Formats: sequence, C-alpha cells, structure tokens
Amino acid sequence: MVLIRSWLRSANAPGCPFPLNNLPCGVFSVGEVAPRCGVAIGDMILDMAAVEGLLGLTGPLFDAPSWNAVMAAGPDVWAGLRARLLDLLVEGAVEQPMIAPHLVPQAGARLHLPFRVAEYTDFYAGRHHAQNVGTMFRGAEHALPPNWLHMPIGYNGRASSVVVSGEEVRRPWGQVKPAGEDAPRFAPSARFDFELELAAVVGTPSDRPVTVAEADAMIFGYVLLNDWSARDIQAWEYQPLGPFQAKATATTISPWIVTRAALQPFRVPGPPPDQPLLPYLAEPGPMKYDIALEVALTPEAGPETVICRTNAAQLYYSAAQQLAHHASSGCPMNSGDLLGSGTISGPLRDSRGSLLELSWGGRDPLAIKGGTRCFLEDGDCVTLRGAAQGDGYLIGFGECSGRLLPARRDPYARP
Amino acid sequence: MVLIRSWLRSANAPGCPFPLNNLPCGVFSVGEVAPRCGVAIGDMILDMAAVEGLLGLTGPLFDAPSWNAVMAAGPDVWAGLRARLLDLLVEGAVEQPMIAPHLVPQAGARLHLPFRVAEYTDFYAGRHHAQNVGTMFRGAEHALPPNWLHMPIGYNGRASSVVVSGEEVRRPWGQVKPAGEDAPRFAPSARFDFELELAAVVGTPSDRPVTVAEADAMIFGYVLLNDWSARDIQAWEYQPLGPFQAKATATTISPWIVTRAALQPFRVPGPPPDQPLLPYLAEPGPMKYDIALEVALTPEAGPETVICRTNAAQLYYSAAQQLAHHASSGCPMNSGDLLGSGTISGPLRDSRGSLLELSWGGRDPLAIKGGTRCFLEDGDCVTLRGAAQGDGYLIGFGECSGRLLPARRDPYARP
Repeated sequence: MVLIRSWLRSANAPGCPFPLNNLPCGVFSVGEVAPRCGVAIGDMILDMAAVEGLLGLTGPLFDAPSWNAVMAAGPDVWAGLRARLLDLLVEGAVEQPMIAPHLVPQAGARLHLPFRVAEYTDFYAGRHHAQNVGTMFRGAEHALPPNWLHMPIGYNGRASSVVVSGEEVRRPWGQVKPAGEDAPRFAPSARFDFELELAAVVGTPSDRPVTVAEADAMIFGYVLLNDWSARDIQAWEYQPLGPFQAKATATTISPWIVTRAALQPFRVPGPPPDQPLLPYLAEPGPMKYDIALEVALTPEAGPETVICRTNAAQLYYSAAQQLAHHASSGCPMNSGDLLGSGTISGPLRDSRGSLLELSWGGRDPLAIKGGTRCFLEDGDCVTLRGAAQGDGYLIGFGECSGRLLPARRDPYARP
Repeated sequence: MVLIRSWLRSANAPGCPFPLNNLPCGVFSVGEVAPRCGVAIGDMILDMAAVEGLLGLTGPLFDAPSWNAVMAAGPDVWAGLRARLLDLLVEGAVEQPMIAPHLVPQAGARLHLPFRVAEYTDFYAGRHHAQNVGTMFRGAEHALPPNWLHMPIGYNGRASSVVVSGEEVRRPWGQVKPAGEDAPRFAPSARFDFELELAAVVGTPSDRPVTVAEADAMIFGYVLLNDWSARDIQAWEYQPLGPFQAKATATTISPWIVTRAALQPFRVPGPPPDQPLLPYLAEPGPMKYDIALEVALTPEAGPETVICRTNAAQLYYSAAQQLAHHASSGCPMNSGDLLGSGTISGPLRDSRGSLLELSWGGRDPLAIKGGTRCFLEDGDCVTLRGAAQGDGYLIGFGECSGRLLPARRDPYARP
C-alpha cells in the first residue's frame, strides 16, 4: 500500500500521522461549540456534521459527542463511509470547494473521548509482560500461569475511569501493606505506574458466542491505552479476585480511533503459539498488527526521555481472539466496549512497557535525562505514541498522554 | 415501626410483601404499551407516569423505561417522593379517586429491568462463603486471604449480562480443565451454580473518595441478585486476574428496587469485626440489614425445595463500606452502578448460599425433593426470596428467579 495523495497538502507531508490512508475518528470542539464528530486529515479536522449531507448516509450520525451511532451501524456503513471520504478528499476531487470550508485546524481544537465507553476489559496478552510480572510476583518457576498459553486471560476494568489524552491523573490513595509491616495502612500510592497498551473498540454488538473471524469483523478500530496502575495497592489486593482499586483511578486513551480498515495492510501473524490453541481461538489469518510503539517520560522540569520502544506484533493473542474468548460464555458484547491488550513488552530491557518491568520492581532504577525512576513521581508526564509504517506513509495514532498530579492531602476533606 | 395502612386493602393484608411502608420501584409494561416506571403497592402497580402531575416534582421523570433519572436526582428528591406517595396512598387520603384509576394489577403486567445498569461490581463480603470457598480452592490453612479482614474484596463484573427475574439463562460453554486431564477443553459447563446475594443500587454519583456515611447516602436501594457461576470455568481461569467468563453469562436481579428509606428500620450492626478496620472503612452506625433470605430450587418436573435460609445481617462488610472502598482510589461512581454483596452464607449447612458450598464442591450431594443436586441440571429454576420482618408487616423484595436452559449444541452454528 502506498500513500493516497490528498488535495490537502499537509496530509501528504512525510511523517504526517494522518494521511488520507488513515482517516481516524475523533470528537472535537472549538471554543464554546458543543463537541461533535471529526476525522483527522493532515493538520486539520474534517467537521463531519457539517459535511454530513455529502456522505450519503442515513443520519444524522455526526452531530453528536461520540462515534457510537456510527460504530453500531456496522461494517457496511463503515466501509461506505471510508470509501466516500477517500473520494471527497483525494487529489483532484471535484468536491474540494464544498469540503475545504469545513476543515478545522487541529491546533485550535480541543479533543474529547471519541466514544462513550460501554464497558472496559483489560487483557494480559503480552507474553514478555506476563513473564516479567509473574516472575516478580510469584517467582520464575510460577511466572506464567498454567492457563496463560491456552486462553487470553483478562479482567473487567472500570469504564467510568477512562479519560482522553491530556487529562491530568491524580495519584490515588489506597490500602497498602509494605513488606515488613504487620498491618496495612491507607496511604498515597508510592508505586504508581503506567502500562503501554493497544485497545480495540467494539463496533457491532453480539448476544452469543462468536468465532474469531466474526469477532474481527465486529471491531471498529484501535486506540492507544495507558492503564495507570498502583503497584503497591495491586500487590495487596489482587488475591484472589484480581486487580480492583489498583487500576480504577484512571485509564487514558488516545483521542483518535484508527479504523480497522486503515490498519488492514499491517496485519502480521505475530509469534507462533507454543502449543496449539483450542479451535474456538484459531485465527483464520494474521490478526496482529505491526505497529511501532514508544513511551516517553517527561518530568515536570523536562526534558523527555523515550524509555520504551516495542511493537504491537509482540502480542500473543490478537484483539479478535480476546473478543471471541470474551463472548464465549454468551457474555453480551456491546458497541463501545473497550478491550485493552495488556502491556506490550518486548524481549529487551528497553522494550518493557511499564516501570514495574523497566526498574524490575523498583530494584534497578531506570536512568532518564536528569535523574532516575523506579516509579512515577508527581509532575511526571507519560506519553504513548504509535504508528504503522507504510510505503512512504504512516498510520499514526496521535499521542496518549497524561500528567500525574500529587495525591490529595486529605482525600476526605470537603472544600 | 408498624404497618402504615393504605386505602388499597391488599396492601394491608398480612404477609403482603408490598405494604405502604415499602413502595419499591420497578419498570412495567402491559400489552404493547412501552415500559415505564411503577411503584408496587399491595397486589397493584401505581403507574407513576400517569400520576406524575400529582407528585410535585420537576419532570418528566417517570415516562421512561428506567428509574435512572430519579436515582440521579438525589436523596432530597427521593425523600420528597416517598413522603408524597405516603400521603396519596395512606388510608383516608382525599386523593384516592384520582390515584385509584392508575393502579394496574401486578398479575397482568410484565416486569423489566428497573434501571439501566451503568457498571456492575461484585464483592466477596460474606465471611462464611469466603471461608468455605477458600477452603475448597486453597485448603483450610489459606482459606481466608490475608487481605480479607482488612477490606471488602471485590471485582468488576459485566453489566451487559444483568437480566431481570424471569429471563431464562443458558448453560454456557467455556474452557475447563478437569482434574487428571493434561490439557483444557472447550465444553458446556458441568458445574453451573447460583449465588445468593443482596445488591446495592447507586443513586448519586461521586468523582472522588467518599466516607462510609457519604457512601450510604448515595445508595438509592437494594435488589436481590443471583450471580450465576460456572465453577469449572472459574477454577481454571481465575488465577491471576480473577473471575471472568465464569461469571459473564448472566446475573439475575429482582424487579423491584427496595429503597434505603424502606429498609431504615431494619439496620443492624452485623458481626463485630475480628480486628479494627482502617478509619476510611469505619461505620458511623449500624449499616447492615436484617433481611431474611431463602433460595428455592425447582427441577423442571417440580416441586420446589427450599435449599438455603440465611440473613443479610451475616455480611461482614456493608454496601456503604463496599462503596467507600470502591471510590477510595478516586474511581468515579455513577448513578446505576450495581454492587453485589457476594454470596451470603450463614454458619449452618442449610444456610449456605451456593451449591458449591451446599454440596461441598460436589463431594456431598444435596437432597432435594425427588432427587439430589451437586450442581444445577438443565431445567432447574432457582428462586431467591427476601423480606425484612417489621411489627405486623413485611418489606418484601419479590422474587429473583431464573430457569436454566440446556447449552447450545454448537455455540458457533448460525441459524
């Protein structure tokens, strides 16, 4: 696949994350106007509500603060919309004069959550991450749980905590029991961390088990996701029912949903399974994606250090396999369900997708420009970035960024 | 508290679950009319949309298929509404002629989910249950996890799977690894179970940590809850991230939300904690409820056997403590959040709230009329019942009932 040139010059620039091949879906506002649907192209946003009449869809779908209505409309509508946008924005399109007035500069727009999150599930599908964390929590011998190579392990997270890139995150209080102490105490988390993930956004709902191929067709697109994690709260609470308050403070996602169609050319098989999977998890073709990922950490006083470089192709289970497993019990899946991949670590030290791994549980501080880190310090900003590299173009995700505020002095004081 | 007599005679009958003291909130429909809000009184339902003009609230609130708008309106609105309904329905009320035409017989109405479930969390706050299950899964020595006496352990469940009493539940397929087998297989669950729970319905939202007293004030009311559980799927999947597909097939709730105000006279302190709790979990007064609970099992060929009798006062942690813990990390809580208590077992064999406990992991079959049970068989109907006993009146919950359908022959076949 090569660059599809647009009449909008900024979309054709080398290194532009949003060429015409991409067309990711977001929600934006300018000034006091209510948030509404937009599509990123070059350095602009196409105001979808303003051009809705040119799109030939049964609507209105776009004068809304979320893409949920479009997502629920299903793959035929998604394909038709993409084809029509390509027609309208391609170099030489006769509609240019009708479209151009409805392009809004990204620089002056505020971005919101691109969809209403129905429910949020977080998986654990990165093998190096599972191996690393398992080694730290349970020892090398019991690192990978016995079920791990047979199914995509996951847990339900908290949809209410999902925020869009740019929102600040406050260091949580919680119950912790430091090593050597007899009793737990309630204190600000001292081991607050990020997790680098890719997340699938479910478009079409299901009310019964689905095959991996059906699951793949249900996925509208992908976002970057930072599953902020309080490791000290997690270590004390997670047995026997899994992570709860350790992962409930916030989960940040990138503001643009990169559609499955845009990522189609970047499908790869991923690592071969160690042992055959049960037939209900069999992939009919390559379903992971070759997406380069990185994490930058920027202390309050700057400058940033890139602390992790990895690739989404490292995932052992694809989002389609995760979704098929999720629906296997008959669990109803809905438009707007968000499925985090789990932390995507690679095999090398600088490809580890969390500080827990990068500092090996705090025992081996990570060097950054102007200091070191075991876990996050107040004022630190964590930025995830991701892009698939095509032939002379990128499919970029934009940034997934959040700055850590200090804990409240007294979480129960009322102003 | 004594019976408050109504001009509607059926509400004053001994044993009536819905006297004027109760006034639980549901959603009903008759024939083809769209579902809307109703309040149970005696053997009737008051059509709340039809009498909205007499209630003195800023609306419309009741011509809707859920109570969420009322729930979000907060405690002052709830108190005003209850006071006004008491005035309108009390013996001697002059408004009787205006109200009576809007009473609909319960016998001819269909009941729907009473509110839109925002998110569903399930706790593990019954000590006997935790002790019993822990003994079976991890041995007597490690039965109660070290954190259990310090915090209400919980996990996020799946809101999309919550259904109202009366809906049939289909036995799920899932990954299981029977003892002695080398590899897992994908099969219908052979150890499908119920769980007897009480659940709190959050009314007012929060966006920061809340005290136990604040949490209590946020709760709109309570329902009975059956957290259907596939024990064989659970045993294989739950390490290390907790229950997932084992609890995702369905969760049944009773159709009437019994308000916190109606339960006020039945507050009890519950069992004293074994050790002091951290201050953020301290209860300012008695916050458990004296609610008698029972479970009836009815095979397809009938008749029913009552297999469990217990009491909600057995809970170690109240819903207010659970909610305060849930919000302690800053996790935003929303109107419509549903918090299951965890299985409410008592100390005796016939007070155990699940078949897992009643048959001790299947090793000690439970006698029922006409047979025995280790786990549920196809066609079995499980009915939870609950009521608080006042001085000459009951606060009833109605029934929480569901019948188990056989597993699909091929879950991936399409009609």
